[in-house]
Amino acid sequence: MSDHHVAPVSGPVPVAVRQPPYYAVVFTSLRTEGDEGYGETAERMGELVKGIPGFLGEDSAREPGGLGITVAYFRDLAGIEAWRAHAEHRAAKAYGREHWYERYSLHIARVEHSHGFERAHG
Amino acid sequence: MSDHHVAPVSGPVPVAVRQPPYYAVVFTSLRTEGDEGYGETAERMGELVKGIPGFLGEDSAREPGGLGITVAYFRDLAGIEAWRAHAEHRAAKAYGREHWYERYSLHIARVEHSHGFERAHG
Repeated sequence: MSDHHVAPVSGPVPVAVRQPPYYAVVFTSLRTEGDEGYGETAERMGELVKGIPGFLGEDSAREPGGLGITVAYFRDLAGIEAWRAHAEHRAAKAYGREHWYERYSLHIARVEHSHGFERAHG
Repeated sequence: MSDHHVAPVSGPVPVAVRQPPYYAVVFTSLRTEGDEGYGETAERMGELVKGIPGFLGEDSAREPGGLGITVAYFRDLAGIEAWRAHAEHRAAKAYGREHWYERYSLHIARVEHSHGFERAHG
């Protein structure tokens, strides 16, 4: 028995950090108004990406009326390329540029250092 | 006169992409309940970091009741190190581990590719 335990956390938690190197794809966007199928497609993409070899997980947050940030983690560039080339993902991106996004920025980055913190509940 | 113009966007917009290489610091967190001075300190840190040489900007989003993601961009690792070593920032981080964060993950990554999109309003 430990004096410490981790309290159950409901809802999403940050993707666990891994031993570098690995890759992060940072997608930061400002949405247009209205849904126009966005929610459904976002959910579908979130499922599809799990099938990409080397996919390590993704975190997502959208501030109401503000920026959305999604960070997807991959073991290597091959996984990122496979996801980029995925036909259904390509179609969703093209539709997104037409309908969902006012602006976005995409950064593909090689993670060189990482660490995590988890509160101890005593 | 152009046939296209960019509609004014109110509120934050994504940090403009730069020519790689540069660095991204991805901080993903789950907050404890209550503010406990978080808002005020977060604002202060957002001002302080602007004084770090090589700081390129940061984007932030927090989903109500969910994850928060902040991505800060720096020209080089020296800037990240200067920010990490900043006394007031160090104190805020220590306080944050005691009071504000249930969990967090930090990833320091070298951006190798980036691109941006901005909707044309015709």
